[in-house]
Amino acid sequence: MSRAMIVEISATALPDMVAAVARRAGTPGQEAVVVSWPGRTLVVAPATPVPGAALAALPGVLRVVETGAPFPLAHRDFTAERTVVRVGGTAIGDGGLTVIAGPCAVESRDQLAVVASAVARAGAGVLRGGAFKPRTSPYSFQGLGEAGLLMMAEERARTGLPIVTEVLRPADVALVARYADILQVGTRSMQNFPLLAEVGRCGRPVLLKRGMAATVQEWLLAAEHILAAGNPEVILCERGIRTFETTSRFTLDLTAVPVVKRLTHLPVVVDPSHAAGQAYVVAPMALAAAAAGADGIMIDVHGAPETARCDAGQALTPGEFERLAADLERVVAAARMNLSIA
Amino acid sequence: MSRAMIVEISATALPDMVAAVARRAGTPGQEAVVVSWPGRTLVVAPATPVPGAALAALPGVLRVVETGAPFPLAHRDFTAERTVVRVGGTAIGDGGLTVIAGPCAVESRDQLAVVASAVARAGAGVLRGGAFKPRTSPYSFQGLGEAGLLMMAEERARTGLPIVTEVLRPADVALVARYADILQVGTRSMQNFPLLAEVGRCGRPVLLKRGMAATVQEWLLAAEHILAAGNPEVILCERGIRTFETTSRFTLDLTAVPVVKRLTHLPVVVDPSHAAGQAYVVAPMALAAAAAGADGIMIDVHGAPETARCDAGQALTPGEFERLAADLERVVAAARMNLSIA
Amino acid sequence: MSRAMIVEISATALPDMVAAVARRAGTPGQEAVVVSWPGRTLVVAPATPVPGAALAALPGVLRVVETGAPFPLAHRDFTAERTVVRVGGTAIGDGGLTVIAGPCAVESRDQLAVVASAVARAGAGVLRGGAFKPRTSPYSFQGLGEAGLLMMAEERARTGLPIVTEVLRPADVALVARYADILQVGTRSMQNFPLLAEVGRCGRPVLLKRGMAATVQEWLLAAEHILAAGNPEVILCERGIRTFETTSRFTLDLTAVPVVKRLTHLPVVVDPSHAAGQAYVVAPMALAAAAAGADGIMIDVHGAPETARCDAGQALTPGEFERLAADLERVVAAARMNLSIA
Amino acid sequence: MSRAMIVEISATALPDMVAAVARRAGTPGQEAVVVSWPGRTLVVAPATPVPGAALAALPGVLRVVETGAPFPLAHRDFTAERTVVRVGGTAIGDGGLTVIAGPCAVESRDQLAVVASAVARAGAGVLRGGAFKPRTSPYSFQGLGEAGLLMMAEERARTGLPIVTEVLRPADVALVARYADILQVGTRSMQNFPLLAEVGRCGRPVLLKRGMAATVQEWLLAAEHILAAGNPEVILCERGIRTFETTSRFTLDLTAVPVVKRLTHLPVVVDPSHAAGQAYVVAPMALAAAAAGADGIMIDVHGAPETARCDAGQALTPGEFERLAADLERVVAAARMNLSIA
Repeated sequence: MSRAMIVEISATALPDMVAAVARRAGTPGQEAVVVSWPGRTLVVAPATPVPGAALAALPGVLRVVETGAPFPLAHRDFTAERTVVRVGGTAIGDGGLTVIAGPCAVESRDQLAVVASAVARAGAGVLRGGAFKPRTSPYSFQGLGEAGLLMMAEERARTGLPIVTEVLRPADVALVARYADILQVGTRSMQNFPLLAEVGRCGRPVLLKRGMAATVQEWLLAAEHILAAGNPEVILCERGIRTFETTSRFTLDLTAVPVVKRLTHLPVVVDPSHAAGQAYVVAPMALAAAAAGADGIMIDVHGAPETARCDAGQALTPGEFERLAADLERVVAAARMNLSIA
Repeated sequence: MSRAMIVEISATALPDMVAAVARRAGTPGQEAVVVSWPGRTLVVAPATPVPGAALAALPGVLRVVETGAPFPLAHRDFTAERTVVRVGGTAIGDGGLTVIAGPCAVESRDQLAVVASAVARAGAGVLRGGAFKPRTSPYSFQGLGEAGLLMMAEERARTGLPIVTEVLRPADVALVARYADILQVGTRSMQNFPLLAEVGRCGRPVLLKRGMAATVQEWLLAAEHILAAGNPEVILCERGIRTFETTSRFTLDLTAVPVVKRLTHLPVVVDPSHAAGQAYVVAPMALAAAAAGADGIMIDVHGAPETARCDAGQALTPGEFERLAADLERVVAAARMNLSIA
Repeated sequence: MSRAMIVEISATALPDMVAAVARRAGTPGQEAVVVSWPGRTLVVAPATPVPGAALAALPGVLRVVETGAPFPLAHRDFTAERTVVRVGGTAIGDGGLTVIAGPCAVESRDQLAVVASAVARAGAGVLRGGAFKPRTSPYSFQGLGEAGLLMMAEERARTGLPIVTEVLRPADVALVARYADILQVGTRSMQNFPLLAEVGRCGRPVLLKRGMAATVQEWLLAAEHILAAGNPEVILCERGIRTFETTSRFTLDLTAVPVVKRLTHLPVVVDPSHAAGQAYVVAPMALAAAAAGADGIMIDVHGAPETARCDAGQALTPGEFERLAADLERVVAAARMNLSIA
Repeated sequence: MSRAMIVEISATALPDMVAAVARRAGTPGQEAVVVSWPGRTLVVAPATPVPGAALAALPGVLRVVETGAPFPLAHRDFTAERTVVRVGGTAIGDGGLTVIAGPCAVESRDQLAVVASAVARAGAGVLRGGAFKPRTSPYSFQGLGEAGLLMMAEERARTGLPIVTEVLRPADVALVARYADILQVGTRSMQNFPLLAEVGRCGRPVLLKRGMAATVQEWLLAAEHILAAGNPEVILCERGIRTFETTSRFTLDLTAVPVVKRLTHLPVVVDPSHAAGQAYVVAPMALAAAAAGADGIMIDVHGAPETARCDAGQALTPGEFERLAADLERVVAAARMNLSIA
């Protein structure tokens, strides 16, 4: 039976050795893939009949990991250590809870500044804000584009918070990566494979939202696309799936938090705002996500939610966000005293 | 436009007065319904053109409540007070978190006694255990029937815990009500309307599980069936809905907790065991439910989960349950300091 | 590895022989079940370590069928012949297309007579009409009860059409079986196991609607409940499943037709009316079901759809139904010339 | 109340007049959009308080259409005529049934030639074949890229059939449009808005597959993105939605055919192959789609299905396809004699 193998190559190995490993591990129908991460080289053979010991014996090979997972790089079989993503002074995945907050869409310098100050004051670790907005209707506000990125960068300078923002188009990845600390791939782009490949080469961490109809396996395979393209820093984000229920816009699948933490070494954050669609649901679900073991929470905040140009009903006011941030801190302390999600 | 009206009748009103109110409020296509709760009489006119003031002026009328909800008795418009269900020394819906625990199915006196002692020791407020089991296959263990009820009653006597158990058949309601403190209506019976009517007349509180494909509105309409049949004590139980995701058996819809608490005055508990299907998911989701504001948690516990005759993979051991119970207490304390889900 | 076995017993076997087969085939945790069909006796051992040859050698055994299916009696492994259900002069499952039509709910003698005459004239093979109606709201019209059954029987006498009507409560099965040629188990009752057992003993064919959230496997297991209780005449009915889509009330899963016909020997009919929710969708979906190989079509017809007391929007007028019936005949002739769904 | 307006501009109108209409129809928060189709100019004001009569009176205005639809250009309110897409000698949407067939992925010149000859012989109107394949796993065959496009073009030259192939990346649209007669946007790209905008400017008809979790409304809004970007030739393609059912890969939503034909003037085709996942389901569902009124059917055909590098289980052999094509012809003739889906 063939299984996936990840062959880790020594830092001092010559290119020829890497090529030799890839040749040996691959088969005609299923070539091995060379993955270059900063400071690490890996050869992934997704289905190989060659025994691990035979690969381990090749020159330049550090270790060989066998796994039955279809997403070998994303799977916990690959590494016992959890991936921690560090941006600015913020760590995501280190056992604490990172709060990511900001407006759904950047609308103006003033709108953004009010929110950025508020969320920084309340202890957020990352500022969010959309400049390129995927919109169901071609007639809706599509975001400010590069002007919005510039405003986000200004707020980073002013508040010290690293920033995350969405990228929609492979051709825009380099542009967005010049401004953003973390690039977001949205729910509608989770299986935009050219985009995944491009953010896999961008040199920045990627926050990968779950597709609204994606199984956990498809989500982790999407992460694998990014990892295999050369980027080890992927943050998963659960944001609600599509079900028959209509009292909320999407059904937040919090079960995915323990499930994903068992399957993968990547951090997972939860966005309760988009699933809820209504502000009163956001705080309970944020607390629930924290209690379930999420590594972070992503919250829409707006200075005047009722006037928001995008997803108006779901944003918290700065005051509501401040109260939630305090609640979150207490729940995290309480929930993580004993709980070990292994 | 016609709206639903609930007319509360004075305790001293004569039967004729009640009949007169019902006549006045009903219309040929849509008669009014007289609802008799212990110590209270209500006339529900689900869609009436008669103005509330006209009804309020009739003899014997205490007050009139108007609502646009299709489930007038279950809706918060009917009463600002939250319904608190009291059984034995346990209150459900009083702002705290009630833990309901026990085996999925009663298998033997010994199996039950081990679990009952353990959950009592760990602070559970209600003992659960199934004697009549709805099984997908006709060839699976269908429960011990009345012998199981008897064992449950013995454990109540021994531990002091009130007991909850499922009833499947209208003809068994009286039998089950002789033994149980709370009658459970399972997910597959949520729209078994003859059963709802029967438990509506049984004089015991009813724990109503959400149908696996039921919208929140259908769930509350099922509660309305029970309320309208004469039983004011309904406890709602979210237990996971059917979606495309397959890593868990059902997708626990925790968003339903704040949604339902806003729509209704009834308490809502969460059963994470049946949704999870795997024990490692149960504790995180129980903590999440507590953080989201649930009034109770319902947990499968088994002395030797791997040998359980029903849903083996999902039960916690007594030791795991004890640790969870301690975690729950801390999370509830933390989450409910500020959180007001109004 | 244990597999399911069905042991067919000779008609001349003595009761002792049957008991001996059951004892031999069962195991402590999983007893064998004796199934009595008119003129046939079967012993089902759902998971037995005993080899088929050992069972075949026992006295009184005609043949032994092994299968990996969890629904051994419903599976095609059990019999190569397709089950044909005959009521009055109508056959369901004989390769043709049976049209079942009538009002959703019987409302009055006149309303029923108009529809019954029209559907008989247009060539329907069975008259449908509900007397016990499962209603989401306790305040909706619940059907005429036995008075409705009586009207259905009168129309059978007048038109010569056999009749099908729903039963909701185990205690009503005997009553309904006195009037009806086919008993219908509705979508909300598909996993009402006491009801399945009761209709399994009623001596009438049963039309089993798929639960709105039931997988094909669960549906066939529900059929197995009826078969195992003693009733070999089950007609499956696809009526739409619950999905995220909202332009129709349910998503008619026509793929289930070829899937079920491959898995089982039972006939399968399609009810496009309840899925559609709107009359203009009914005719195209009825033709589609016929082209997909369904054994029958079940259509709501009402003399004045806009006044219907139940599911008003979806009924066809007698004139619309007549045109559809003619279209159906032509499509069946065209689609079944080559198509063999094996 | 504001409603959407489409203002059709006279062919002889000057640019200034167009600009004046757009200025008058737009509002600060919601500008009007100028849409340029070959030979036609339209101004779409998605929500305008200006009365239609005021717009109709402006210079250069031919007519004004008001609609409540969120997809004004796609909605039937815009035009009573159905859109017919013509490529090569094939018309899609003219009342007949167009068969689109070919391999899921182009694998080699020989593999393609065998299939192309077979489907041409059996009467297909369009040849399909994928050169850029969206694959869930980064380790799966991703298609031959431009080499595959070239092979498709060669087969067009040889068989005379127009060709349809998928485009994944906005930057590839011009390349694919040089080769293909119809550009396909796949289910995972249905809300890839930059791609929709780009194919909206490509000068070729677009086949837009429904997203696997898209509502009908979201699907028509995706079509609106293409229409508003300048392309009036959109063919909708139903290919199955994601549900809880697992016996098929996706649930083919044939109800969408009559629903979409009532809502829009665009042609709709059905792809039963990807939904089925298994070949034996394809023919019944293709016939069902034809009977339901689809304008076309899209079928995977492979010379040796078991060796296919993509979606192996679902392809028909050339012989199976030939039989299906004959069946389809008869069913279309039978189903469309009376049926008018208006």
